[in-house]
Amino acid sequence: MTRLYDDPATFTDDMLAGFLDVHRDTVTGVPGGVVRVTETPPGKVAVVVGGGSGHYPAFCGVVGHGFADGAVVGNIFTSPSAQDAYSVGRAAAGTAGLLFSTGNYAGDVMNFTLAQQRLKEQGIDTRVVFVTDDIASAPASEAGERRGIAGDFVVFKVAGAAAEEGYDLDAVERVARHANDRTRTLGVAFAGCTMPGGTEPLFAVPSGRMGVGLGIHGEPGVGEDALPPAAELARRLVSGVLAEKPAGSGDRVTAILNGLGTTKYEELFVVWRTVAALLAGQGLEVVAPEVGELVTSLDMAGCSLTLVFLDEELERLWCAPADTPAFRRGRVEPRTEVLRGVAAPGDAGSRDRLGGRPDHLAGTAHPDQPSVAAPGSPASRACAQVAVSALEAMAAAMAGAEARLGRIDAVAGDGDHGRGMVKGSSAAFAAAREAAGAGAGARSVLVAAGEAWAAKAGGTSGVLWGAVLCAVGRSLGDDREKITGSGVADAVAAGLKALLELGRAQPGDKTMVDAFVPFCEALTERVGSGAELAAAWRESALVCESAAGATAGLRPRVGRARPLAERSVGTPDAGATSLALCALAVADVLERAR
Amino acid sequence: MTRLYDDPATFTDDMLAGFLDVHRDTVTGVPGGVVRVTETPPGKVAVVVGGGSGHYPAFCGVVGHGFADGAVVGNIFTSPSAQDAYSVGRAAAGTAGLLFSTGNYAGDVMNFTLAQQRLKEQGIDTRVVFVTDDIASAPASEAGERRGIAGDFVVFKVAGAAAEEGYDLDAVERVARHANDRTRTLGVAFAGCTMPGGTEPLFAVPSGRMGVGLGIHGEPGVGEDALPPAAELARRLVSGVLAEKPAGSGDRVTAILNGLGTTKYEELFVVWRTVAALLAGQGLEVVAPEVGELVTSLDMAGCSLTLVFLDEELERLWCAPADTPAFRRGRVEPRTEVLRGVAAPGDAGSRDRLGGRPDHLAGTAHPDQPSVAAPGSPASRACAQVAVSALEAMAAAMAGAEARLGRIDAVAGDGDHGRGMVKGSSAAFAAAREAAGAGAGARSVLVAAGEAWAAKAGGTSGVLWGAVLCAVGRSLGDDREKITGSGVADAVAAGLKALLELGRAQPGDKTMVDAFVPFCEALTERVGSGAELAAAWRESALVCESAAGATAGLRPRVGRARPLAERSVGTPDAGATSLALCALAVADVLERAR
Repeated sequence: MTRLYDDPATFTDDMLAGFLDVHRDTVTGVPGGVVRVTETPPGKVAVVVGGGSGHYPAFCGVVGHGFADGAVVGNIFTSPSAQDAYSVGRAAAGTAGLLFSTGNYAGDVMNFTLAQQRLKEQGIDTRVVFVTDDIASAPASEAGERRGIAGDFVVFKVAGAAAEEGYDLDAVERVARHANDRTRTLGVAFAGCTMPGGTEPLFAVPSGRMGVGLGIHGEPGVGEDALPPAAELARRLVSGVLAEKPAGSGDRVTAILNGLGTTKYEELFVVWRTVAALLAGQGLEVVAPEVGELVTSLDMAGCSLTLVFLDEELERLWCAPADTPAFRRGRVEPRTEVLRGVAAPGDAGSRDRLGGRPDHLAGTAHPDQPSVAAPGSPASRACAQVAVSALEAMAAAMAGAEARLGRIDAVAGDGDHGRGMVKGSSAAFAAAREAAGAGAGARSVLVAAGEAWAAKAGGTSGVLWGAVLCAVGRSLGDDREKITGSGVADAVAAGLKALLELGRAQPGDKTMVDAFVPFCEALTERVGSGAELAAAWRESALVCESAAGATAGLRPRVGRARPLAERSVGTPDAGATSLALCALAVADVLERAR
Repeated sequence: MTRLYDDPATFTDDMLAGFLDVHRDTVTGVPGGVVRVTETPPGKVAVVVGGGSGHYPAFCGVVGHGFADGAVVGNIFTSPSAQDAYSVGRAAAGTAGLLFSTGNYAGDVMNFTLAQQRLKEQGIDTRVVFVTDDIASAPASEAGERRGIAGDFVVFKVAGAAAEEGYDLDAVERVARHANDRTRTLGVAFAGCTMPGGTEPLFAVPSGRMGVGLGIHGEPGVGEDALPPAAELARRLVSGVLAEKPAGSGDRVTAILNGLGTTKYEELFVVWRTVAALLAGQGLEVVAPEVGELVTSLDMAGCSLTLVFLDEELERLWCAPADTPAFRRGRVEPRTEVLRGVAAPGDAGSRDRLGGRPDHLAGTAHPDQPSVAAPGSPASRACAQVAVSALEAMAAAMAGAEARLGRIDAVAGDGDHGRGMVKGSSAAFAAAREAAGAGAGARSVLVAAGEAWAAKAGGTSGVLWGAVLCAVGRSLGDDREKITGSGVADAVAAGLKALLELGRAQPGDKTMVDAFVPFCEALTERVGSGAELAAAWRESALVCESAAGATAGLRPRVGRARPLAERSVGTPDAGATSLALCALAVADVLERAR
């Protein structure tokens, strides 16, 4: 949804005014568009690109050294007029002629051709190259009729670099046509964009479906299919484009995985992971690929894969330095530092590992994870077995409550509490089971569990639960001869102390502290009064549950990481709620273990 | 909507694998995140940033020369664990100590502080600076409790540049804290993002409303208000941030107008236009502003304004070169070209014109628009008056049909036909009226109309209608003694000829040609049979209308700018439809003029 505008009728003008202000060191406005802030040097061919707007960084964003000399800027998704193209061409042209390049659309073809005629009449040698990379828009037998989409970027970059290198007009035109001949794109669309002032998108794709063969002017796809997982989408894009590999091309390519506007960087990188593996599997070497938003379509959702089948000249021109508002290439300072000698297994820079799940983020891959091997006393090992069962019950409780905890958390936070608790508790259970299986006592088992919880879950709840479990374990030790009810209550109190020290939340701040403090007090009191542990824990867990519910009545704390929203007053705290659920789950285990 | 993923549980790992492949020349993976591909040089402080993922380019995208030495990468919107932070810190640290910096969130504070303790235990001097730029998250009296949003980018950049310059650890920490003290952000949200695997956004904002005070982890705003026009939004952001201008700051600032993910570049430039004018109006000089997506929140809609109140040191460090996957600064080659001497009124690079509507795109601003002054014969001037009325009627018909034409066009195209026809016909009417008022004949009036149509509308329909009107005018001339029915029919035939030559569409291609050919043939035949012009035109216009409707039965042409969608078979062509509407509107005028 395009929401920010003043007057839809002047949207393009208003956009250009802002753009020109931000990038005044690089570009300046002329009637019909934008040119470099510097004069075209004598003898240098001018390259002027263009088309409708709504595609930023295309096309005004690529005016600058090593790329375009000017951009003709039409209204949103509308070809600029012949007069606009003429005006920008005349402003950009130096003494060595002019190359126009645009996507192959009827309006652009007519308007840029008319402008070319007019410039020629004035003695400015002018050529026009229309980009035709979209393989979905016409069959290969009518390749000249295809439209230009993200491949525009390639042809414009290559032509701009050639002109910067000093190619004459014939040669710039030749290499631009050659780049176009070697460039193929296939795209998919998930949702249409909304024009400024519009209330509905230009088209809609049903949920779970995708349009195949996107247009960058709000056109729907030419076909429709089910939306597949990212890896399968990558396979279809790669096989679709490779099916049109030009005859005689070699094994070096470059690629653009282009987002249309609302398909974001993280998603594109996930798709790229498989694209890279597939291209490598085909024996292709990928040179200087680009993954990001290069040719957008306002807030359209979708992406496209462009492959350019390189030769030496195209590779050199694609890799040449550029310095424009939206695209830069080339080192700003020569690299003097020494490359890292990292060659460990799972080297993240290597292509080999793209096919498998990268393990460098997994908690267990950390090189200096402390290993747990202290043998426990018989009583401590028995206690450890109960702890393992308790963690198993907690993990099950969290799995069952994940969605509910997420909903509660989304009221005032980011909705990830349920997932974090599931990740942490299941990792803690796994680590505890492994340590107990190796004969560890309560301390070692719970420290292993706590460290795994913190490492795997991350976030606030992860680090806090990790600290609590470690403190509980350290209090219980590995070598006691007997674990009493008051020993357990003391251990829980040690866990609360660790929570208070690390989290620095106060009672009344509406956090898990508000449920933990009454739980701990009740447990200490009941065990101190001689109650059996299982019964005391059950009663204390019910106190905890009640206290967690009461956080809904507390006013949320103003400040750090906690929105001011009054609306969250009626919702209990997610951390307090999950603590109560865990305490209740453990009560069941203690009763069974009795 | 986040749509592209394989397994939501491994989304961050999969994303990192793709990221590391694309940017393998700059970064490499280590357990817990990313470091530069080069060793930290002896004596250089290492700057390690981080936080949850989902914010690309923040934070792994800014690892590289002049910026961060490493980034700790947590799961989406989740603090990385202390172990992750420790691991990346250890990998990045050289001999001169380490600065961690993250946003001020409970989880990040705990985890990075724990990592700091562990690194210090190993003899690595480590500092931590938490960013607190979000003025909406807590009152000024509790500024230390505020959370970090887009201002993260500023603090990280300044710290990274200082380390690159050779500052020692004390000095890097000092200037990072100083940058944080001088940085203020206020943001607004229009729609929440969707987590990978989720089906609903984390929050929703009612249509036409906005959340004020956004969080970058899917948190809703702290307040809500009506969504204003772009200029009013700019005013609120500027006044909100300037209300917290730090004491003792001067008149130089830098700014980030940051898009959260689906609020796109064009919209941000429209807002920036007013932001720049307002800051200039306050006497502030804006140095090296950034307008774009620097700290995103998956596919969240919204934007924020960050101002940094500079001193000499902060300005130098902000402007220092950087070379990272997602952010580069500094010229890749020294500029040898000569700055343009353009100083015309309306110089688009100047800030002065930001307040007003830029006129450099308006058709009338073109420097060499041919002026129309040929005086017409009495008969030609009378004909010209009819032409003016005809254009007025066409403009009214197009205004009435704009929405309908847009809907028809959206089936197979980009939905802009209605708007283009309104723009073109109204501009043509205005130009014709002006020329006729100056005494011009039919030729001059219609040529002026055609040129205005092409220049103002742009696009395909604009250039074609412009060519048709010019050809009709040239056929009618300025100096005839009498304009006959057959003269008008000949002129229409000349218009058709121009259309066919320029547009190169053939009958049956489902374009306006399919309605124009039968119209022209009918008019020629009826006028040739002695019918009165008005009656002949009416009958021919009905033929035209019928032929336009029949384009719905034609199979759309495969290829250039025309999707293959079978679905468009049932819809008439938008260009043929608007031609018929214009022909019918002119019939009314001719009847009245009889």
